[in-house]
Amino acid sequence: MSAYTIGLDFGTSSVRALVVRVADGAEVGTAEHAYARGENGVLLSSGDPHVARQHPHDYLEGVRVTVRAALEHASRNDTLFSNAAVVGIGVDTTGSSPMPVNEHGASLVDDPRFAGDLDAHVWLWKDHTAAREAQEITALAHRMRPQWIARYGGVYSAEWYWAKLLHCVRVAPGVAAAAADWVEIQDWIPAQLTAQPVPIARGICAAGHKAFYDPQWGFPDAEFLGALDERLVRFGEHLKSVRVAHSGESAGGLSDTWANELGLRPGIPVAMGAFDAHLGAVGAGVQPGTLVKIMGTSTCDVMVAPLGAAPNTIPGLCGVAAEAVLPGHLSLEAGQSAVGDLYAWWTDRIGAGDHAGLSTDAAGLKPGQTGLLALDWNNGNRTVLVDQELSGLLVGQSLYTRPAEVYRALVEATAFGAKVIVERLEAYGVGVERVVACGGIAEKSPLVMQIYADVLGKPVFVSKSAQTCALGSAVAAAVVAGAHPDFGTAQRAMTGLKSEAYRPNPAAVSVYEHLYALYRTLHDAFGTQTELNLGHVMKDLLRIREETRTP
Amino acid sequence: MSAYTIGLDFGTSSVRALVVRVADGAEVGTAEHAYARGENGVLLSSGDPHVARQHPHDYLEGVRVTVRAALEHASRNDTLFSNAAVVGIGVDTTGSSPMPVNEHGASLVDDPRFAGDLDAHVWLWKDHTAAREAQEITALAHRMRPQWIARYGGVYSAEWYWAKLLHCVRVAPGVAAAAADWVEIQDWIPAQLTAQPVPIARGICAAGHKAFYDPQWGFPDAEFLGALDERLVRFGEHLKSVRVAHSGESAGGLSDTWANELGLRPGIPVAMGAFDAHLGAVGAGVQPGTLVKIMGTSTCDVMVAPLGAAPNTIPGLCGVAAEAVLPGHLSLEAGQSAVGDLYAWWTDRIGAGDHAGLSTDAAGLKPGQTGLLALDWNNGNRTVLVDQELSGLLVGQSLYTRPAEVYRALVEATAFGAKVIVERLEAYGVGVERVVACGGIAEKSPLVMQIYADVLGKPVFVSKSAQTCALGSAVAAAVVAGAHPDFGTAQRAMTGLKSEAYRPNPAAVSVYEHLYALYRTLHDAFGTQTELNLGHVMKDLLRIREETRTP
Repeated sequence: MSAYTIGLDFGTSSVRALVVRVADGAEVGTAEHAYARGENGVLLSSGDPHVARQHPHDYLEGVRVTVRAALEHASRNDTLFSNAAVVGIGVDTTGSSPMPVNEHGASLVDDPRFAGDLDAHVWLWKDHTAAREAQEITALAHRMRPQWIARYGGVYSAEWYWAKLLHCVRVAPGVAAAAADWVEIQDWIPAQLTAQPVPIARGICAAGHKAFYDPQWGFPDAEFLGALDERLVRFGEHLKSVRVAHSGESAGGLSDTWANELGLRPGIPVAMGAFDAHLGAVGAGVQPGTLVKIMGTSTCDVMVAPLGAAPNTIPGLCGVAAEAVLPGHLSLEAGQSAVGDLYAWWTDRIGAGDHAGLSTDAAGLKPGQTGLLALDWNNGNRTVLVDQELSGLLVGQSLYTRPAEVYRALVEATAFGAKVIVERLEAYGVGVERVVACGGIAEKSPLVMQIYADVLGKPVFVSKSAQTCALGSAVAAAVVAGAHPDFGTAQRAMTGLKSEAYRPNPAAVSVYEHLYALYRTLHDAFGTQTELNLGHVMKDLLRIREETRTP
Repeated sequence: MSAYTIGLDFGTSSVRALVVRVADGAEVGTAEHAYARGENGVLLSSGDPHVARQHPHDYLEGVRVTVRAALEHASRNDTLFSNAAVVGIGVDTTGSSPMPVNEHGASLVDDPRFAGDLDAHVWLWKDHTAAREAQEITALAHRMRPQWIARYGGVYSAEWYWAKLLHCVRVAPGVAAAAADWVEIQDWIPAQLTAQPVPIARGICAAGHKAFYDPQWGFPDAEFLGALDERLVRFGEHLKSVRVAHSGESAGGLSDTWANELGLRPGIPVAMGAFDAHLGAVGAGVQPGTLVKIMGTSTCDVMVAPLGAAPNTIPGLCGVAAEAVLPGHLSLEAGQSAVGDLYAWWTDRIGAGDHAGLSTDAAGLKPGQTGLLALDWNNGNRTVLVDQELSGLLVGQSLYTRPAEVYRALVEATAFGAKVIVERLEAYGVGVERVVACGGIAEKSPLVMQIYADVLGKPVFVSKSAQTCALGSAVAAAVVAGAHPDFGTAQRAMTGLKSEAYRPNPAAVSVYEHLYALYRTLHDAFGTQTELNLGHVMKDLLRIREETRTP
């Protein structure tokens, strides 16, 4: 009998369930559910644009709706399928998206005192209310625990666990006092599905990438937390007793209640949760030497290296953590703050054209022919400069510069930004042999993919699955269920690449080497405190453009 | 009886005649005529986009049509007017726009051998076929005659007299051999109207600004011209015998033929011709301390200083010449290569909106609020860097940057470019007390005018006349006719300013001082070979933007 697993992918606005055959990765059933509450699933505050919260009931309702629908879809789709053949469930979520829970692990929104209190809800990843606290944590860590902050590229983000908890303690002390624990939704959802006893177990992914956890030193100590705020200390003490596990380990068996609700066998294992991007990398076939780029509005770049084979710290990388992606491996996370968002700025905000038309025109241009060069920093720089106070730049425009030329320059800028990340990884001994792209842009834009291949000088593959996050969760579930002995075996069976890769064109590679050198000059000039001569930049761009005109 | 003069303004696509009352500058009659030949009056070559020629008959036809129509208009308009009351004619033209003529001063296009030869036509100012020759002349002048090239900011342009003549000698030796002389149309047209005997007299304006003439050394000598090409020497020899005169002097009396043709009194004086921008400055009331900015697609900036009161050479100024604007004064010419063209790039080429809508939105923004900074070099930099190989730059954009914000940044960039020119003039002792703007932008864009006042920290006045070039020609005619004793008296009587000036707003001035310092940093970083630290630029822009949010 064929075995199947379910991957649950909790995104910012919706949840998706994917039923996958473990033998070959066939995606036999799927369903999506948009969260009912808030604006596109996000609870906003009219008084503060930085607030972005979520209601935890949306997740549980989403599980009920999507799992049932995906199972029905699988039944119609695959005659071999039956609900009884589902052997495990995996979970990935956004993050850091923590929420306060009581001593039983229940959300405070279920407490009538806090039901209407936004601070008692899930603090969604993109909530930016804790900017000041993040700066405070960054400064303190540099003073007291430099080895911790080094893992995060030197900057602790307002989006992360401790910044949000500290902000809550200050602005909503009643909520904080009523909370026995703060848990990431990647941990809370598996705990709910398995009726897990408290304390809720922690996925090493969120713990390592967002909460200063490392197997070597554990969670932050009382001295550090007390120096931030005495009220944080008890949360740190609580964390000492929790189990920390990777997504190849079980969070528990599916509870009778949920099994009944979903029509699944009780007791089938639910994997420990992890972030969407990290299980997405698993679903895209991440392994040492493969850089997975999840390309959408921004990119998340994920690599792995066997523990001990790479340095624990790479300057400018926003996240290096143990076993967050694959057991036995260090996970290395980088990212670009604006990719699809940058292109959409030009098309939608400036109104310079639509993606289809501009892409067609831009594809007709040779590398260097625009005479333009851009920095991809309209939303700051996440890697390797880790500086939110950077902004966009465009240089080289004439009175004849057309919208499609700028569009191409913006695409090239994001590819140059990607190359900076690759060079940084390689400089620290993490070789990038191939690139696998997934996400909306990888699916939709051959122009972008070919430019990435030409700029990186490496083949760029595209993941076969269009749902790599949910697929990665299904892979984790297959490992936890014992359907495959390990991630490598499970990935070889269940994940794959589209047969056509984007191969670098040698002529383009050579032009982009020149343009990249200019990009690095601008990058270092505007992103660091280095004195540089830029008097050659505009002239070099003209010369490169002229050279494209000679046949 | 009231006296009147006629100003003839020969533009790139059309000629305008303006009948002006000398007592008070009242513009009592006007008419315009579009040249019949070519595309918008310009003869193009399908094989070479750099070719831009004109047919001299278009000028003469234009005189017939517009003078008659303007006289009729004046008769209807002003009961005191009669054709007999016209006491003189002034002429301004584009330039450097030379053409080959035979030994009688007739255009070679009237010779059947050359009637269809574009090289025998007028080489319009914007003809760029002589780029290589211009480089050759620049290099030779730096070696042999550095004092000459210093007058032109160190660069001899492809648009100018000797470059065009040298190019003709090389590519059309038959035309060059048939030519007895090369004359600017500013000299040829008055010569035609007055049936002037050869050699045709030269306006000091074109001679000084485009042909290396200076009263001190005359036209270029045989040694210099021979080093370029032996075939140039005879043209230089010929120039030794010509009269050189300013526009306050007569080119001769109106010929019987033309008087008859136009219905004017024969023998009334026709003033020596000058460039449109220079007589435009006269029409705008230029005098020591007043900077006249003729603002259209680009700007031409004109100042005067009493001879001996300012240095003969100011680095980076594209033209310093004796008596080209006012007798007894040095004329100082600067310019910005793209002003209206830069705004139109954004509206028309990029398609980001229309001028009216973007101006309204941009006017609602405070200085610094865009967070943006631009360099106004999409068409190179004419002053003070004198470098055609520079290009545009925009920095500071976020994902939220709107079209109107970029529009405002482009306007600010042109104002900063204007301030660089003012600072350069003042650094060399040419004080700028007030600015008078004229041209299309001065008439149409209060947004641009107010930003210029705020950036320059000086009041910006607008010329009362919308036809300052033709008015300036009419002023010259009044001086030559003796209706006024000198230019100063004539200008006080005949020219004026609109009563409402744009006054600098102190709060805006202060913000723009900060932004201008950043503009200078980018200007020097990209426009010179200086090592600079730019790591603060993006952060400073953010800080300036933040400060605009505090009430």
